[in-house]
Amino acid sequence: MTEPAAPRPKALAFDVFGTVVDWRTSIARESVGFLSRIGRSDIDPHDFADQWRRRYMPAMAAVGSGQRGFVKLDILHREMLDAVLHAHEIDAAALDPDLLTDWTYAWHRLDPWPDAVAGLAQLRSAFPVVTLSNGNVSLMVDMARRAGLVWDAILSAEYARAYKPQPAAYLATADALAVAPHELCLVAAHHSDLAAARSCGLMTAYIDRPMEYGGARAPDADAAQDWHYSADSLTALAEQLGC
Amino acid sequence: MTEPAAPRPKALAFDVFGTVVDWRTSIARESVGFLSRIGRSDIDPHDFADQWRRRYMPAMAAVGSGQRGFVKLDILHREMLDAVLHAHEIDAAALDPDLLTDWTYAWHRLDPWPDAVAGLAQLRSAFPVVTLSNGNVSLMVDMARRAGLVWDAILSAEYARAYKPQPAAYLATADALAVAPHELCLVAAHHSDLAAARSCGLMTAYIDRPMEYGGARAPDADAAQDWHYSADSLTALAEQLGC
Repeated sequence: MTEPAAPRPKALAFDVFGTVVDWRTSIARESVGFLSRIGRSDIDPHDFADQWRRRYMPAMAAVGSGQRGFVKLDILHREMLDAVLHAHEIDAAALDPDLLTDWTYAWHRLDPWPDAVAGLAQLRSAFPVVTLSNGNVSLMVDMARRAGLVWDAILSAEYARAYKPQPAAYLATADALAVAPHELCLVAAHHSDLAAARSCGLMTAYIDRPMEYGGARAPDADAAQDWHYSADSLTALAEQLGC
Repeated sequence: MTEPAAPRPKALAFDVFGTVVDWRTSIARESVGFLSRIGRSDIDPHDFADQWRRRYMPAMAAVGSGQRGFVKLDILHREMLDAVLHAHEIDAAALDPDLLTDWTYAWHRLDPWPDAVAGLAQLRSAFPVVTLSNGNVSLMVDMARRAGLVWDAILSAEYARAYKPQPAAYLATADALAVAPHELCLVAAHHSDLAAARSCGLMTAYIDRPMEYGGARAPDADAAQDWHYSADSLTALAEQLGC
């Protein structure tokens, strides 16, 4: 194996949804029960997960544009759930509020990809590893405790009060870690996220997750570039970085 | 052992300097070398540590009062170091800047009390455990990685943009964890910190650290109250909490 030409980062910041955890399978698994409880087992749970996630970018963008002030992702996830239900002609206001909260918190209970716990531990032996997620702190804490992920710090949109891909989200993470932007490497399965990080001066590591959308083409597939590192798992990235 | 009367918290937030780590012995240990390098081995390193720490509260207070905007503790530690050196008739401006930075970063290299790593791991098996320290994020990350402390999240003055004992520091931590203030328990060796947390509605756990000041009386000894929990180590607290 040849040594990569890219310089060695001082710290690694991780996108989480899709990169570290498999949101689609997890949300589908969780939604089976909730759909059954509301008498709508006719709805395909994987389609439901895709529909929920599809509302993610526009919800972030509304905050990013200043159209609304910063709110935690838990709040946005709940609004997105109401909208998906509405699209299926289900009135969320008529449902048990506790059920809706619990359903929203399905995003706190996402399962890691098979390589994630081991890969992260390997990487953490050599680098500080932190989250750089749009997920809020309590979401990340719940997910990490349940999945056995160990982070050196939970940094996120909630820390920066700015959602990715706003530059403030990337730059606040470098600042908190007391490293220059070019010393921090974003690890992400999404070309759009990596492109925004690169435009802030960060290093970039792409993780290929072909099953993130159940095998369907990723919405940002056209944004592919040559990244500093590219791997098909966190354990493979750890090997590339000599951990 | 009788069950404590206090209700069970949902999460634990830790003061760190003095409660989890022994700053005095560690700063003295680090300062021996630096004092020698600047030709001032005549200065007692433990006295030096005490003098450095004594400037802590006034430095925080200047930020808390709005006299100056929020700055990271690393910056304050450096200013405090310059002042302590000045009191010993040493001109910091005449010294190697790298030496001064490294000396300031001695606060990133504090050793845990003997019970801290095991006690924290025990407590973490049952509760989310987070820092609620005036230390900045990179200080806490460096310290935790070196000492083997595992935190579920690094929350701090830098997260809240407010130093303890400002209410915002305590309330921002509860908000980030999505718990009510009365569901969060501050664990601290300092009565003054616990009193401020209590006035924000938090639960309180006192850890007795008689050697924090080398056996001398703590400056806030008069602020003692009956706290919800009281223990002489983190492992003893874990037992009281049934971990």
